[in-house]
Amino acid sequence: VRNLKITLAYDGSDFHGWQVQPERPTIQGALAAALERVTGAKVLPQGSGRTDAGAHALAQVASCQLDVGIPTENLQRALNHVLPPAIRVLSVEEMTPAFHARQSACAKTYHYRIYRGEICPPFLARYVYHYPYPLDEAAMRVAAAVLVGQHDFSSFAAVDREGAPEEEQSSNVRTIYSSGWTREEEEFVYAVRGSGFLHHMVRNLVGTLLLAGKGTLDCAGMRAVREARDRSAAGPTAPACGLYLVSVEY
Amino acid sequence: VRNLKITLAYDGSDFHGWQVQPERPTIQGALAAALERVTGAKVLPQGSGRTDAGAHALAQVASCQLDVGIPTENLQRALNHVLPPAIRVLSVEEMTPAFHARQSACAKTYHYRIYRGEICPPFLARYVYHYPYPLDEAAMRVAAAVLVGQHDFSSFAAVDREGAPEEEQSSNVRTIYSSGWTREEEEFVYAVRGSGFLHHMVRNLVGTLLLAGKGTLDCAGMRAVREARDRSAAGPTAPACGLYLVSVEY
Repeated sequence: VRNLKITLAYDGSDFHGWQVQPERPTIQGALAAALERVTGAKVLPQGSGRTDAGAHALAQVASCQLDVGIPTENLQRALNHVLPPAIRVLSVEEMTPAFHARQSACAKTYHYRIYRGEICPPFLARYVYHYPYPLDEAAMRVAAAVLVGQHDFSSFAAVDREGAPEEEQSSNVRTIYSSGWTREEEEFVYAVRGSGFLHHMVRNLVGTLLLAGKGTLDCAGMRAVREARDRSAAGPTAPACGLYLVSVEY
Repeated sequence: VRNLKITLAYDGSDFHGWQVQPERPTIQGALAAALERVTGAKVLPQGSGRTDAGAHALAQVASCQLDVGIPTENLQRALNHVLPPAIRVLSVEEMTPAFHARQSACAKTYHYRIYRGEICPPFLARYVYHYPYPLDEAAMRVAAAVLVGQHDFSSFAAVDREGAPEEEQSSNVRTIYSSGWTREEEEFVYAVRGSGFLHHMVRNLVGTLLLAGKGTLDCAGMRAVREARDRSAAGPTAPACGLYLVSVEY
């Protein structure tokens, strides 16, 4: 049995997120169907974590065990042949038996794209959150820095337990290595790198940072939200369409 | 009665082209519905020409006569508020009574984007024609130059008369002012500017230029196709998803 690491990019607009669901198009479901069509084997590839409906990935990682001899490069090509164009396999690598896409992950990076111009180009509508109203971007940079470090991020975890945490850990303590905003022409982009992320955490961080941008929350307020360990202290969940899983480190 | 010029950008992926059709989403239909919702007036805006199902526009122009006092800037904002995000009104201008989006047009520019990399990023799948196979790009540049000038372009006009020509002229003579390819990283982009274009003409030009790229047609062959004035002499119609109406000059 070979243990495979599959790296994927996807436009999540037309999918109900990563996790397989009956009767609904999902990334995991599409990948499982493609693997079965190409190899004949029924396997459920495990992702590094779930992504939400409408959220995107530049390099999501999945792993699965396969008992077929097809060379990895041919497997990649065959999967891309049967997958919809919105999902692309960037690479297939053979790993040691210990590798697991979720359990072996040691860090992840997400981006969140906010389009600041008054008219959002139609070609970006699925790929950014359009927010053309005034924002104090300097205040958002300061507030983003408050998140760096090892903290209990319960204030930013989805309360909906039905969805379960992205990672199966009982603690809500995570380490954020970097958290900051950059301006790229009409876009204001949040980049966050951490040891792991709770369900909806990045979207909740962005929703709360937007409160700082609107002047509702200052730096001390941001710290208080973080320390509250209570979802109701933080801001709303930002829309999924601006969110990108950029990379998973092992 | 005011005569308005409306400039639009759209992602045509989810529309059945410009021209209004019963029971199907079209750009013209969506714009007419938005105008009615905003102003209460039933008008059918006239486009500079039709665009095909799946084709895009960076700056399509429409005109219509409206008997309402709403300032053009407010009208633009209100239209964008009710239109789907895939269609954006870039500007609304008041024109003299003689202006007509189609009849007054004196030149148009189209682009056609071909993605040459082996794996087409999922975020580009709706916006380019993915052609990762070998192409003689130098031969395509030479063949593109053959099209410049005043010619009868019947070889590149849709035979399907049901669709009618984009412009209501009985002659198939048009003038191409420029016709060339540029490399932009993984993309090979065709840009053509002319006095006017027949139905499917740009997609048929690209389909024929691809024959030159595949080595099936040389420079003399390209000239022969043009001189044949016969659709069957030219190459197939390239997919709509790579096509952009870039600008209309008046």
